[in-house]
Amino acid sequence: MSMRSHTAGQVDLAVLDQEVTLVGWVNRRRDHGGVIFVDLRDRDGMVQIVFDPDDLDVFAKAESLRSEFVIRVRGKVRRRPAGTENPNIVSGQIEVLGLGLEILNRSEPLPFQLDDERVSEEHRLRYRYLDLRRPEMLARLKLRHQVTRALREHLDNAGFMDVETPVLTRATPEGARDYLVPSRTHPGEFFALPQSPQIFKQLLMVAGIERYYQIVKCFRDEDLRADRQPEFTQLDIETSFLDEEEVMALIEDMMRHLFAQTIELALPNPLPRLTWAEAMRRFGSDKPDLRIPLELVDVGDLLVAVDFKVFSGPANDPRGRIAALRVPNGNSLPRSAIDDYTKFVSIYGAKGLAYIKVNDAAAGREGLQSPILKFLTDDAIDGIMTRTGAQTGDVVFFGADKAKIVNESLGALRVRIGQDMGLVEQGFRALWVTEFPMFEYDEKEGRYYALHHPFTAPNLDDLHLLETDPEAVRSRAYDFVLNGFELGGGSVRIHDQTMQKRVFELLGISAEQASEKFGFLLDALKFGAPPMAGLAFGVDRIVMLMSGATSIREVIAFPKTQSAACLLTNAPGEVDEAQLRELSIRVRKPVVEKAE
Amino acid sequence: MSMRSHTAGQVDLAVLDQEVTLVGWVNRRRDHGGVIFVDLRDRDGMVQIVFDPDDLDVFAKAESLRSEFVIRVRGKVRRRPAGTENPNIVSGQIEVLGLGLEILNRSEPLPFQLDDERVSEEHRLRYRYLDLRRPEMLARLKLRHQVTRALREHLDNAGFMDVETPVLTRATPEGARDYLVPSRTHPGEFFALPQSPQIFKQLLMVAGIERYYQIVKCFRDEDLRADRQPEFTQLDIETSFLDEEEVMALIEDMMRHLFAQTIELALPNPLPRLTWAEAMRRFGSDKPDLRIPLELVDVGDLLVAVDFKVFSGPANDPRGRIAALRVPNGNSLPRSAIDDYTKFVSIYGAKGLAYIKVNDAAAGREGLQSPILKFLTDDAIDGIMTRTGAQTGDVVFFGADKAKIVNESLGALRVRIGQDMGLVEQGFRALWVTEFPMFEYDEKEGRYYALHHPFTAPNLDDLHLLETDPEAVRSRAYDFVLNGFELGGGSVRIHDQTMQKRVFELLGISAEQASEKFGFLLDALKFGAPPMAGLAFGVDRIVMLMSGATSIREVIAFPKTQSAACLLTNAPGEVDEAQLRELSIRVRKPVVEKAE
Repeated sequence: MSMRSHTAGQVDLAVLDQEVTLVGWVNRRRDHGGVIFVDLRDRDGMVQIVFDPDDLDVFAKAESLRSEFVIRVRGKVRRRPAGTENPNIVSGQIEVLGLGLEILNRSEPLPFQLDDERVSEEHRLRYRYLDLRRPEMLARLKLRHQVTRALREHLDNAGFMDVETPVLTRATPEGARDYLVPSRTHPGEFFALPQSPQIFKQLLMVAGIERYYQIVKCFRDEDLRADRQPEFTQLDIETSFLDEEEVMALIEDMMRHLFAQTIELALPNPLPRLTWAEAMRRFGSDKPDLRIPLELVDVGDLLVAVDFKVFSGPANDPRGRIAALRVPNGNSLPRSAIDDYTKFVSIYGAKGLAYIKVNDAAAGREGLQSPILKFLTDDAIDGIMTRTGAQTGDVVFFGADKAKIVNESLGALRVRIGQDMGLVEQGFRALWVTEFPMFEYDEKEGRYYALHHPFTAPNLDDLHLLETDPEAVRSRAYDFVLNGFELGGGSVRIHDQTMQKRVFELLGISAEQASEKFGFLLDALKFGAPPMAGLAFGVDRIVMLMSGATSIREVIAFPKTQSAACLLTNAPGEVDEAQLRELSIRVRKPVVEKAE
Repeated sequence: MSMRSHTAGQVDLAVLDQEVTLVGWVNRRRDHGGVIFVDLRDRDGMVQIVFDPDDLDVFAKAESLRSEFVIRVRGKVRRRPAGTENPNIVSGQIEVLGLGLEILNRSEPLPFQLDDERVSEEHRLRYRYLDLRRPEMLARLKLRHQVTRALREHLDNAGFMDVETPVLTRATPEGARDYLVPSRTHPGEFFALPQSPQIFKQLLMVAGIERYYQIVKCFRDEDLRADRQPEFTQLDIETSFLDEEEVMALIEDMMRHLFAQTIELALPNPLPRLTWAEAMRRFGSDKPDLRIPLELVDVGDLLVAVDFKVFSGPANDPRGRIAALRVPNGNSLPRSAIDDYTKFVSIYGAKGLAYIKVNDAAAGREGLQSPILKFLTDDAIDGIMTRTGAQTGDVVFFGADKAKIVNESLGALRVRIGQDMGLVEQGFRALWVTEFPMFEYDEKEGRYYALHHPFTAPNLDDLHLLETDPEAVRSRAYDFVLNGFELGGGSVRIHDQTMQKRVFELLGISAEQASEKFGFLLDALKFGAPPMAGLAFGVDRIVMLMSGATSIREVIAFPKTQSAACLLTNAPGEVDEAQLRELSIRVRKPVVEKAE
């Protein structure tokens, strides 16, 4: 005695002339030629129902139908009249003649039309349960489920164990800002929500789990300028007794399975790899978007002796870099575009954007046009033209500064121009980036930071440099990059207590601090910790890229806004004084300046 | 170039005479007859390695091995000498002659022996990564993964969508105590961690998802007297267009699949059902443990006219109850045991525990022994003996009080005696309990509470009683009970806005409060909410029962103590003043009494 006999996806020519019972929402009602047409929508699709006036009772009920009413229809499947078929839907060859109609629930007029593209995101988020009725939103949630299902399936079959780690845990030293949870039973103390289960998964390896995974919520209380969410979903993986080659092979398999299974796309086998150094040199980025056929070229060595400080400075600075970015057919860019790009690179700290327009590549200096030409020798110009391969009609941009600034600004400009000029190839370009530096020096703080995290193992070939030249030490970290996004990152971990202490020391963490913050991890390394390696993927980002959405908010059922609020439930909100008292906290009133 | 060629579970007679490379932990080392035996342990099992002094280098290394060292062994598989086989392990017919040995990591002596049963739970939790090395703990985590895997598999195939709901959300009105998370971007406001995704899953039904599930962490800041955890894992399910019969059938299928798949146990089809009223009458509990063959019997009607207030009071009180619990062969219980039980029932509010010992069932009043005999007429005694079926050698206990007290005290006594007397049957006894009351009256607060939750739909047959006799209204709720534990509970939900408002009103929630606390749900019900029903299972409890563990802490990788602390990481902990300032909160100092 089910409410329905079929779903919308099951009603086609195969059930012609049969009686079916359907349930769902009135997607649209049209009255035409004395007949009422209703598009019935359910999770599976859409079916056209026809009510004709032969049955007065049913017709009268059908006349009361409005958009988004929830109905149950009994009817007979028949062929649509020739010329009215809809080839885009499963049920497009048929329609259902309504013989019985039950209204399961009514709907007031919606605050917005579901298919209205102009509705603001704020409005959609406030009524998210309506927004999710849009077929593209439903499709994204379905894809998200297919993605996690395919990942689990692959990892389950590869002998991985799904183990849950705590949500109420300890603050993350060396991480981003934590979300805190006051403890009622330990007044004045706080739990933190995990930024990742990093330490727990390492402890699971010490426990002998060998292969762990979890699809798990993680939390960061950051300013959400970029496309970030305070809570996000991570595929977390850790292994014992595997080195980076084995882990990368295993993860490649998983990702190939995922793409094949969900969107029927074959990723290359094996995936291309770039060292961090090469990625920076060629693309100015550690997550290069390989769909964009533009590359950076080093030209600093050609400009060492030039009488132009903007170039000679970086050319002679060991931390400096001068790179050229050739843009084919870029000569046609108007002055205003170049001004725009100059402003754009300044966001990344570049003090200007030199360029050379190539009017006639065969004409030497005479065929070029640029305010900086006068500073360059013929040899330098020849060298630049040869190395960039510039052709008539091209423009060549230059970045000259500290390497960090050149990489960030030209790396971003490369992507920007690629998009502006329509150069971005279709499809998916995945790669590994490897051999990251172990440490990054923070000039302001005057100390080293771990580029990955403090548990990342150093490259065995660079151990001799650990104390003498930390910045030259490469780590055993690896990132999975897709279309310019870092989808996942991981590393071989330190499993040796002495090495872990050495690295803490290099990071300026005293033995005392280390024992206070990481004591339980250091303890664990004493009792037979195996070699271990792992990584973590951003599930929201994977689904976003696969679905072609432009924001992770589009692939999360109930996301938060940029100010970390939920417009649907109005969270966060105020709470009772009694609740705060139980938690031994009080709200700090903003200091109000007293008038004299 | 893998570190290992086989795992312990793959080394048996099939690889006899082959060379293998194994990695793992030194479970035990014994020196015997000039030879060193090492039990190598990995995630899969155990293999015996033999080092003999023929190879001096390898033997010298083997001599340095201690318990829990992490090693890599290359060796040749050979048959164990006759009489030394171990039939309990896969590799029990063979041993590996060690030809090469690499020490991957050392271990200090452990703080406790892994197989020492006397180690306190506190100590085990502090070194949880060692505790998890015990094979029974590993087996429980493996089972847990099999359980979630089997559940997902079944639900995926049944067309359910896994959708994630927020962790940072809004406080739960009408629920237990929330964990709060101060918002940095909205000073003075707080998120709450979800006690369950109840409202979100209903909104997903309004969105048209039709079949939703999620295996999700939930949070309750309760005093952990019982076997509870501040964070626990729930299998959350919701459907549209199904009634309670269809949902229960679907869930039964899922549970049968689960038990068959993981522990090869066939649950009956269909499962037995009890109405709430019958469960209370026969077992004094809404989650009866059917493995215990003892039942309560009503005898109040026999005692209406008795001249003994303890009995005549409840017998004449419409909210009173007198029940008898016959314990076969209970006559042998010593006086001290009965005293003990009297104390035990007092925990539940019982003012005493009357009993009758049956020395000779054929001898009428003379064959009985009890302080209360003198108050009872022969007719009453005959009635009690007949109704309970008491035999020579039995004892019959009595509860007489408000029904609630009688049910709770005799219900608990029934279980206690069942365990004490070894009456608990082996195996699993699952059932549904249905037709719960919709409301419970709280005498102290002077208001009704929802027995399930305020979104539970009333039984259609009882709608006429809603305003006149709320306590008589049955809800459309159902619980899945196994061996005396409520594993899951659910209901048909209210999908009609008017009905939801009526129920809020009966619960003493004013229209204003309702709109403030549940406005977004009431809104959603306006825009075409479908009929919906669902339920939620406690995953920790399922795994606990299946694995035969006695506490959910035994099936959680990193559980918290009774005071909601993590002994491993020392969470919760103190945080910097600067962090609190960013969150606009301060710690409330305890008030110290000033000395005069």
